[in-house]
This record gives sequence, structure tokens and C-alpha cells, in this order.
Amino acid sequence: MNRTCILLILWVAPLVLSAQNNIIGFTESNAKTQKTLEKEFDTKLSAENLDNWMQRLSAHPHYVGTDYGRQNAEWMVKQFKSWGFDAKIETYHVLFPYPKVRLLELTAPTTYKAKLSAIPIDEDKYTQQTDELLPSYNAFSADGDVEAELVFVNYGIPADYDELEKLGINVKGKIVIAKYYGSWRGIKPKLAAEKGAIGCIIYSDPKDDGYYRGDTYPNGAFKNETGVQRGSVMDMPLYPGDVLTPGYGATKKAKRIDRKDAPTITKIPVLPISYQDAQPLLKALNGPVVPQSWKGALPITYHVGPGPAKVHLKLEFDWQLKPAHNVIAKMKGDIYPDQWVMRGNHHDAWVHGANDPVSGMVALLEEARAIGELVKSGYKPKRTLVYCAWDAEEPGLIGSTEWVEDHKEELQKKVVAYVNTDSNGRGYMNAGGSHTLQAMVMEVADDVIDPQKNVSVRERRSALDLVNGGDGNPRLYALGSGSDYTPFIQHAGIAAINLGYGGENAGGEYHTIYDTYPHYKRFKDPDFNYGIALAKTAGRIVLRLTNSDVLPFEFQQWHSTVSGYLAELIKLTEDMRIEVEKHNLMVDKNVFELSSDSKKPFVKPVKKELIPFLDFTPLQNQLVAINANIALFASADMNKLSQDKMILLNEKLLFTEHALTNEAGLPRRPWYKHQIYAPGFYTGYGVKTLPGVREAIEQENWGEATAQINLLANTLKGFNNHINELLNSMK
Amino acid sequence: MNRTCILLILWVAPLVLSAQNNIIGFTESNAKTQKTLEKEFDTKLSAENLDNWMQRLSAHPHYVGTDYGRQNAEWMVKQFKSWGFDAKIETYHVLFPYPKVRLLELTAPTTYKAKLSAIPIDEDKYTQQTDELLPSYNAFSADGDVEAELVFVNYGIPADYDELEKLGINVKGKIVIAKYYGSWRGIKPKLAAEKGAIGCIIYSDPKDDGYYRGDTYPNGAFKNETGVQRGSVMDMPLYPGDVLTPGYGATKKAKRIDRKDAPTITKIPVLPISYQDAQPLLKALNGPVVPQSWKGALPITYHVGPGPAKVHLKLEFDWQLKPAHNVIAKMKGDIYPDQWVMRGNHHDAWVHGANDPVSGMVALLEEARAIGELVKSGYKPKRTLVYCAWDAEEPGLIGSTEWVEDHKEELQKKVVAYVNTDSNGRGYMNAGGSHTLQAMVMEVADDVIDPQKNVSVRERRSALDLVNGGDGNPRLYALGSGSDYTPFIQHAGIAAINLGYGGENAGGEYHTIYDTYPHYKRFKDPDFNYGIALAKTAGRIVLRLTNSDVLPFEFQQWHSTVSGYLAELIKLTEDMRIEVEKHNLMVDKNVFELSSDSKKPFVKPVKKELIPFLDFTPLQNQLVAINANIALFASADMNKLSQDKMILLNEKLLFTEHALTNEAGLPRRPWYKHQIYAPGFYTGYGVKTLPGVREAIEQENWGEATAQINLLANTLKGFNNHINELLNSMK
Repeated sequence: MNRTCILLILWVAPLVLSAQNNIIGFTESNAKTQKTLEKEFDTKLSAENLDNWMQRLSAHPHYVGTDYGRQNAEWMVKQFKSWGFDAKIETYHVLFPYPKVRLLELTAPTTYKAKLSAIPIDEDKYTQQTDELLPSYNAFSADGDVEAELVFVNYGIPADYDELEKLGINVKGKIVIAKYYGSWRGIKPKLAAEKGAIGCIIYSDPKDDGYYRGDTYPNGAFKNETGVQRGSVMDMPLYPGDVLTPGYGATKKAKRIDRKDAPTITKIPVLPISYQDAQPLLKALNGPVVPQSWKGALPITYHVGPGPAKVHLKLEFDWQLKPAHNVIAKMKGDIYPDQWVMRGNHHDAWVHGANDPVSGMVALLEEARAIGELVKSGYKPKRTLVYCAWDAEEPGLIGSTEWVEDHKEELQKKVVAYVNTDSNGRGYMNAGGSHTLQAMVMEVADDVIDPQKNVSVRERRSALDLVNGGDGNPRLYALGSGSDYTPFIQHAGIAAINLGYGGENAGGEYHTIYDTYPHYKRFKDPDFNYGIALAKTAGRIVLRLTNSDVLPFEFQQWHSTVSGYLAELIKLTEDMRIEVEKHNLMVDKNVFELSSDSKKPFVKPVKKELIPFLDFTPLQNQLVAINANIALFASADMNKLSQDKMILLNEKLLFTEHALTNEAGLPRRPWYKHQIYAPGFYTGYGVKTLPGVREAIEQENWGEATAQINLLANTLKGFNNHINELLNSMK
Repeated sequence: MNRTCILLILWVAPLVLSAQNNIIGFTESNAKTQKTLEKEFDTKLSAENLDNWMQRLSAHPHYVGTDYGRQNAEWMVKQFKSWGFDAKIETYHVLFPYPKVRLLELTAPTTYKAKLSAIPIDEDKYTQQTDELLPSYNAFSADGDVEAELVFVNYGIPADYDELEKLGINVKGKIVIAKYYGSWRGIKPKLAAEKGAIGCIIYSDPKDDGYYRGDTYPNGAFKNETGVQRGSVMDMPLYPGDVLTPGYGATKKAKRIDRKDAPTITKIPVLPISYQDAQPLLKALNGPVVPQSWKGALPITYHVGPGPAKVHLKLEFDWQLKPAHNVIAKMKGDIYPDQWVMRGNHHDAWVHGANDPVSGMVALLEEARAIGELVKSGYKPKRTLVYCAWDAEEPGLIGSTEWVEDHKEELQKKVVAYVNTDSNGRGYMNAGGSHTLQAMVMEVADDVIDPQKNVSVRERRSALDLVNGGDGNPRLYALGSGSDYTPFIQHAGIAAINLGYGGENAGGEYHTIYDTYPHYKRFKDPDFNYGIALAKTAGRIVLRLTNSDVLPFEFQQWHSTVSGYLAELIKLTEDMRIEVEKHNLMVDKNVFELSSDSKKPFVKPVKKELIPFLDFTPLQNQLVAINANIALFASADMNKLSQDKMILLNEKLLFTEHALTNEAGLPRRPWYKHQIYAPGFYTGYGVKTLPGVREAIEQENWGEATAQINLLANTLKGFNNHINELLNSMK
């Protein structure tokens, strides 16, 4: 039997079990009880609650520090308490800049003053709350007052600067204008500053986010010419959370570093603008026409510059400590009170945030209410449930990060897994997270019915995957960053899942004044059917983690996935080698110069350093060794374990994810401890798997690559020891 | 040694010979004389002539039937005569419609009347000759007066109608609006009419042809918002040339079919417009947002319709016979007076046509002048040279087609090869044609130096190919249609080559009032260096064909290319089979419906008929048989042939291309006789190789595919017999 066959059979196995009413982590009899409980849970869920609560939570802007945000937190505490939870607010005091001065003007060759504000919409009263709307800006931009020639840098990611180099253009002393998308926004000013730029403008091009995609608000869901995406540019790939208290909780009395020393505030001023404001600036650029793939959908010829467009950018912020109010609600476990199953969603929004984050928040609340009802009618969770509503997620995952940092030791001892949600809408299930939980999540996806198609959400996701050319086997994606799971998995080494529905809810409201209840009702999930689907999915995951006899960690899918990551790295290195060899041959043959247009800018490429062969065998050998132990673990029959051994096994299993971390963290960013998943240093939200090794290879830092291979092999060895311990605990 | 190695060695062989001062078709001593002659030829060429002549020929609009067109023809006759050619005008009388009424208006939900005219440019006096400019229209559109709802059909090619079907939209009784490009323009109204549309509008989207590509005229070379591409929509894939005299010359007294029976006039009215005129129409459309790949660069959300946009299109033409003046200039051969080497370029233009066709025309004239000078100083061409300037190419290759049809028997007996040029500009050599001439053309490309880079034009082309990911071995592309080589190769079975330089001369002037001398000088080939390069290239090809001891046909590269086409067809059929099987499985699993968005139009796909296995062995066996004979031919030493045998061999070689035709022609279009190359029935200019078989497969007409395989095998057998005759003539 070849390898593919083996993998296929492994894959299909959980499906078969599930059809027989088995659930991973449950004895046969308890699986039946669990399924009955889940059906009961479903009957408690009401879409009307989601609708009402969204109207309440998104009635006014409620970014961190607002009175309405505090009111929302207090209202949620009241709700949780009424459902039987032990709920309270835990407040941290975090730096949050409010924009005092925002000025952007074109000063040459013509003049234009950017409007910097989105138009209110007649049929959307929320957009008319002009006094309350947070002005559009990028949080954690530096203060600044700069004037310089403008350069268009496409998305402002590393590959774009490579293109600029080919054109002989550098941005030193210039102000760059970059399109949103292509990377997490914070990468744009970070890289621009590294390249010597003195200011950064980010705009939403209609190609990515406007009329090119569909009709614009209020006619359709997409971004109109005045909409501006707010967002944080804090250097989160270094560390997220409060910029002044790296690695520890921003309690009232915590020691704070000086703001001017805070490494996660940008080095240069940065401001987001609409495409209406961007067009005159871009139109005033000259110099080479941009490369084909850089072109947007504005009705102009895109030029790179520099100049003759010159812009003046002036930004001043009110840098204040603001209270971030996290809501923490506990329901004590009956058998394992010190094993916590955590569930969270943030409650703060840039403006009203009907979609982001309220659509996920109301599903979480409804889940908690339904569980409360189950408890009232006699259900006893085995483990402790901890439901959370985080504040200050938007400016940099601050609420959750400070809480995790503040409680880290306790959490590492107690938390089984953290289940996160955020925005939610009509469409397909998207699930990411620790691959040890993939089998469990996919079993859940078999048991939740899609509201539109009357098949399981897994089957619908599988259909989408097949239509898009995939193999029809939905998997968990690997977590990078972008929501509150980050401090749990990346920093504390706690297994995490991120969940949501979407794909049929596209729009341009993200972080704008148009993310309102009327927009949500028209374009996102009008009947809250997918809000209910989310509550069913996340609720089942929580209830299974809580009630399982043996915590439902599974290692064969983990192994296959991580082996895949390693294969990717080996191929990446090979591809780089071939690419460099080909490039150097072409330099030798002078084909770049011969094929270049004599009337266009051309910088002759030079030969690149050859790519060495890296020794990946330490990783391959560890994965082989792990595989043998995993097979033993998979073949063990949980039904035959004594209660004592089960307890012992559960206590050990809880530390599974932690065994994949290294306390020293990643090179140059020790906050990130996880060795399998991290947000990319130059991608931001985008994940890098096996990040220590992968980023060293990508940066062509061969010494570091070898060192990281050995470090990772050591971590994997520790993980194997952990699995050995699991096996021993069952003997 | 594996196959790739063999091919590589074969490929490299002519290069090596060339470096040793050998030329294919020449004995060693004559090769030396020839190289000296070619160097002498080069010294005669003057860029100043090209510049002056372009100013003369493109001073006024000169489409077929204009007085200025006639004057140009007469002036060229005078020139040819002064250079020692026996020159005359041969006139045909061809149907040419002139637009009398052109009306396009949006009648609902708002109103807009299309301007249908491009703005004159201050700094370009030619664009100000408003009385002389030919109004923008599509020649051989039917007359019509229609009003209906509008539907946007992307490029209006078969794949686009498949997409419309998925959306549940049909165009019956509607007027369609299609973008230029994606196919030859004539396919758009042809297909629209087949689908039941009653009118067709074609516009230039700025994404393909406007500000998206670069700065617009007069700031840059690209199409401004008012520019309109004229062009013929005659159904040339059926037959080109005069619509009333299919297959025979449109002499004064020729019998003409009734215009209403002419099958190559469109079935519905069709009008080209600018993007300024298109925008209000497209903006008024509603219905589904178009598929991603359909989106253009106008600042709107593109919708498919139908309606609410309703348009009124009224077109009336003055259908008159016009005189088409072909210039034919002969220089008699010394040894083989009845073996003709032909060279042509058209002289008519839609408007001024500085680029199309004058840039190629002036290079041809300079070539002829230089050869005239060589003859005056004693050079005697072995074979007869025939230089031609065709009229009425733009409306449908009419001048050349009528001439070829009228002289077909003589030409088939006498013409060695036809060498065509058309527009020309700065950049890389592009050469297409009979693959039996590939070795010769590439040897020539080794001997012409690129004006910008000081390497051979072949080396520069190779560099471009390498940079674009190719193998760096430039080859002849296969000829479809689009210029005057068509009647020679496709209909008469005469070997043909099409030549030009370009790739650094992009612009939006094609068939507009902006194709003028000032535009050419700024953006195309300012110093006429590539005009000279073209004269050197085409001149060398002509001189080698003329002077060769043995006509330079070569069969190993032909064989490798045609074997490649067959391999493509086998793979195409395999890919279609896999695709259908996958599709049907997905229909069975209902994944299309499950993955579809319930709020968007969705038509459930049905299962497709399975793709049968076709028996390609008759073709494979013929190619194997040919290969053996080809090897014998290649190993023969021309230096050792007696004069008599050489003469006999040359007489046989002349019929080589004809051996690849079938007098019955292609299914449903008997005018097209060639069995290896044809323009696609649904692509227009785009070539279909092995067209009888390929199009039957593409249309899933399996009975016809098998019949065509056998017919083609028979043609190949005839070709093998021909090679046998060549071998026998040397015995």
C-alpha cells in the first residue's frame, strides 16, 4: 500500500466512527449522552437574541476607552450572571492613541487637501452619529510632520521593493503610498521605514476594495469612494498587546517602558485614506508606469513616481492610558474544576462593528445562555467553562494579551484549549487551529447542518473545496495572527481554534463607519442563521472539550500536517536553489540586458549567492520517531482505561500544545514561543509554519536556518517525550 | 541518448554550420558570395528614405477607393520602375461599404447619445483632417435598425457564452456589448448572431486598450477615451477577399453573387465605440455582477444585464464596388525565371496608417530599391522577384486574395514562397510561417544585428524568450490569418513567411485616427532603425530564396513541430476526458449546488457526454514513415549534386507546401485548403494547427474527428510521397 492510500484511510477513519455515533475522546456510552445534550443545546438557540443583541452592542461606536464600550461590558456581565455564570470585568490600563491632528495635502504639482472622512448615508442612521465616530487613522502610527515627494509602492511588501529596485527607484526620504491588502497593514509602514521612507499613506484601491468588486454602499455592500479602513499598525509580529508592558499585564501599577522606547510603535507617520482621496495623489505621479500586477481600478494610468507629486502629512495623537474592560465569565466544572475550556470573542470595535466583532460576540453570548439553560436543567460540565469578551482587540489584541500575560502561569496549568471567534456571516465554515484538534473539529463539522443547503457544514465546505480544485477534505488552517487566539497559542502555548462562517458575505465595511446593523442585515447574515450555525459549532466544540472522557487530542493528522510543512521547506529550498542557478546563468548570458527595453529604466541584475544544501535530517528523524509513538497512542482503547488512568492521562494531555513551544521564543522576537506556528515577521497576520526555520531560509540566513533546524528538532524531541509520557500514563 | 538530447543536437546543428559561413541551400562557394552580396545590400539601405516615404504615404487617409490610395499606388509604381522593376497596377473591383448612418443611443433607464468620433489632437495635424477621416465603423456589418435590452458578454467568445449560461442569461432578442480583444473582432457579431442577438456593439475597454496600459494620446501612446478601433467583421474564417466573388478574382466582368446571399457579411448590425461612449451604457446595466475575469478598467461595477439599459442601434451603409489597386513589380530571374520569390505588404489603411501598414510598406520599398541598386551594379538574381503592394487588405485581405484567386494556377506552378510584412516597430523579431523554412529564417536572424543591443536579432529574441521562461530557442509561429499571407498559404498552398519587429512599440493607435506619423515617430520606431532591421531581414530571406542553389526547405524542424501539434491534440483529448469525468463526478456528488451561493443566480450543471478514445495511430504512423525519409534527405550532400539534378530537385521542391493541402478544403469552408495551419473558425486570426482534426475535437464532433484524422493521414502520406520524389530526383 502506498503512502497516499495510507493517508486516505487515516483520513476517512474518523468519519466512519462518527457515523457510528462515536465521538473522539468519548467512551461509547458517553458519546450517546453527549449527542443528546448537543441536540438539547441546539433547541435553546434563538436567532432573535442575536439580532436584538447586535442592535444593542453596535448602537454606538465602542472602541476601547469609550463609555459605550464600558456599558457594553457591564451589560454583558449582567447577562452572564443571569445565565448562571460567575462573571466580572477585569480591567487593564493600556496605551491608546486618539488622533488630534490629521492633515494630508498634495502640495505639488497641483494642490489637493484630503477630506479624510466618509460620507454619512441617508438610509443608515448609524453613519450619521458624526460626533461619536472615531476619525479614520492607523493606531500606533508615530506622530509626525513631513513633506516629501511621493512614491507608489503597490502593497508595500518585500517583493514590491524588489520591483522598485529593478526600476532603480528607492524611497529614501520619500513618502510612500501603498494599497491596502497584500499583507497585514502594519507591514507597510514597518518596511517603508526600514527602506528609509519618512511617511506612509495607505489607501483602499477600488480593485481590492471598492466598485471593482461590486456595487458600493449604500447600493451594494462594497466600499464607496469615501470609505476608509481604520486599523492598527502596531508591530504585532514583534509582540502584540500594550506597547508599554511587553510580556506582562498592563495592570494599574505595572512598570511601563517609556513611549519613545516602545518598539512596536511605527517609526514613521502613517495614515489610511479613501480612494477618493488617493486618486488626485496617484494621478499627480509621474515616472515609470507601474508593473502590470500593481495596477488598481482607478481610472488613471498608475505611475511609480517619485514625484512630481509632493505631499505634506501631519499627524498628532493624544497618547493616553485607557481602561480595557475584559469580561470573564466562569462556570465551574464538576469533575475537573481546574481544567478550563476557554471561549472568547472581542467586544470592542473601531466604530459600530456590527460585523467586526459583534456578529461573533452575539453568537458567543447565545452559546453561553444556552449552556446556562442546560445547567439550570441539570447538566453538569465536567470541566470549567470560561467565556470571555475581550476589549481593545482592534488596536493590537491588547485586552486578551494583557489578560493572558497577567495570568500566564495559571492558564498554562489549567487551560485545555481556547476557542476564538470574531466576525461571522453567511457562507462556509472556516476553521483554523492546533492540528491536534483537527479530528475533533471535523467531527463537529459533520454534526452541524448548513442553514441554506441542508447538508453538514463539512460537506458544504468539502463541495466548495472540490469546485475550487481541491481534494474535498477540509482541514484546519494554521494560525498566524489577527485575533485573540494569538496570546494563547503563540505566547502561552495553549491549544487554540479560530472559527467563523463566511464567503457569501463579502463587503467593504471592514473597519469603516459602514460596519453597521443595517449593512449587516442587508449583506452579511440577514436572518442570523449563520450566527446560530456558529453557536452550534463553537458550542459543540466547547461541550466536547468540556465533557470528553479523554481530552480529544489526535496526533496522526497533526503528524501528517507537520510532515507536509517540512516537505514544503525542503521544496522551498530546492526551488530557491534552482531559481538562483537559473538567474545566475541568465546573468552570465546577459539575457536581462539583451531583452530589456532601451527606453525604459533598467538596472542590470547581479549574480546571487548560491543556495547551500541544508541538513533537514534532524527534523525528518524526529518525525519518524514521533510517528511510531503516535501509532501506539492511536491504537490504545480509551474504553478500557481505568478512571485513575484517565485522570492522569487528561492531566498530561493538557500540556500537549505547550510541548511544541520553546521558552526562548523565535529569533529577535522572544514573545513568540510556538515552534510550529507564528505570524510572519514580514507578513503580519499571514502564518509561517515551522517559523524559525522557514523565515531563516526565506531571509537566506543559512547559519540561523541550521541552528533553527536543530532547535526545532529538539522541540520535536520534547514533544515525543511528551507522547511517551502519555503512553506511560496509560500503562 | 534520449529524445530531448537528439532534438537539442538537431537544433544546434544549423547554428554551427552558419558560424562556418555555410547557408542552408547554398554550396560552400556560393554561400561566401551570398554573404558578400548581403553586406553590400545592407550598405544601400537608408533610414531617411523610410522616414520620407512614411510622411508621403500616410499624409492623408487612404482606405480602398480613395483618391489618395490610388495616388499612393501610382507613386509606388513610379518608384519601382525607377529602380529597374517591371511594375504595374492590377485593379480589382470589390464591394466596400461606406457608413451612411451611424446611430447609437441609450434609451432607458436614462438616455445618452454616443458621440462616435475621436477628438482631434492639437499637436497632431493629421487628426485634424476631419473631412477626410473615415468614420469609425466595422466593415461588412449588416445594415440594421434595432432596439433592445443590452447584455454585456465580455469578449463575446464561446467561453463567455458558457459563463452566461451558468448565470441563466441568454441574449436572444438582445443587443450585446462586447470588449475588443480576446478574439478577432469578427467572431463577436458572428457568435452573437448564432446565439440570437439582434445587434452587437464592440468597445475598447481601457484595461485592454487605454489608460490601464499606459498614458493616453497625446500624453502617451495609448488609446484615449475617444479613440475607436475600426476594422472588418467580414467572416474571414469562411473565406477572405471580396464577399461577392468567393474563390475567383473580382475582375470587372466577374460574375458576382447577390449581396443578400453573401455569407461573409454579418447577420446583425455591429458598431465599434470608444470607452467614453461605452461607459454610460455599461453603467446603466443591472443584473449579476460579471465574473471576475470579465472586469475591465472603467470606474464602475460591471454588470451583465440584461437591461434595464436599452439601446437603439441604427446602421446604414453605402454598398459600392470600389477599385482595389494592387501594385505588382517584377525583376526577372536569370537562371529560374519561372520560379518566383514573392514579397508583399499592403498599402491601404483605415485612416493614415503610419504604423499599419506604412511602417512595413516603406521597409519593403527600401528593400526593393536596394536590390535595384545591386542589379544596376551587376548582380543577377537567379529567380524572379515579385514585389507587391496590396490594396484593400483592411476590409478583408481583399486585394491580395483577389489577385491570388485570379492567378492561382500560375502562382501554384511558379511561386517558391511568399514573404509578408505589415506593421513594424521597435523591439524583437517576430517571425511566423511554414516550418519547412524555419531553419533558413533562423539563419537569417543570426546575421541581422539588433539596432539597440549589438547582438543578432535571434540572440535578442532568445534572451526575451529565456526571461519569459522559455527555452531560448526562437521558432516560427504557425500562421493563422490577419494579413496578406493568408491567400498564399491557406488557399493556394504556397510556403509563406510573416515578419515584423515589435514589443517595445505598444500603443492604442491601431485602426484609429491616431495612427499617424507624429504618433509613429514618438512611440514606434523614431529613427526607423527597426524599419532598416526589417528590410535587412526580409531582404536577406528574399535574396537567399532567390539565389539558393537548392531551395532552402528543411524537414527535420518541420517534423518536430508537426509531431508537437499531434502531441498537443492527444493531450487535449486526454485533458477533455479527465475534465468531463471530473465534472460528471461532481454533478453526481451535487457539489456545484452545495457550494453555490443561494442568493446568486445558479443554473445546475448537467452531466456531459463522455469523451471517446480517438485512434490517432494513422497520424503517428505517417509521421514515423516521413521521419525515415527526412533523415535521408537531410544526409544528402547538396555540394555533390549535378546541375541537372539540382534543377530537377528545385522544380520538385517548389511544390512542397502544396503537398500539405487538400483540394477539398476544411469542413464547411472549402476555401481553406491547408491541412496543417488555418485560422480558427471561432478564433478568427488565431491559428488552429492540424485544423480539421483539432476543431472537430474542440467541437466534440467525434465522427468528424475520426474522418479528419484519416484525411490528414492521407495528406501526410502524399507529403511523404513528395519527399520520396525529392529523394528520387537526386538519384
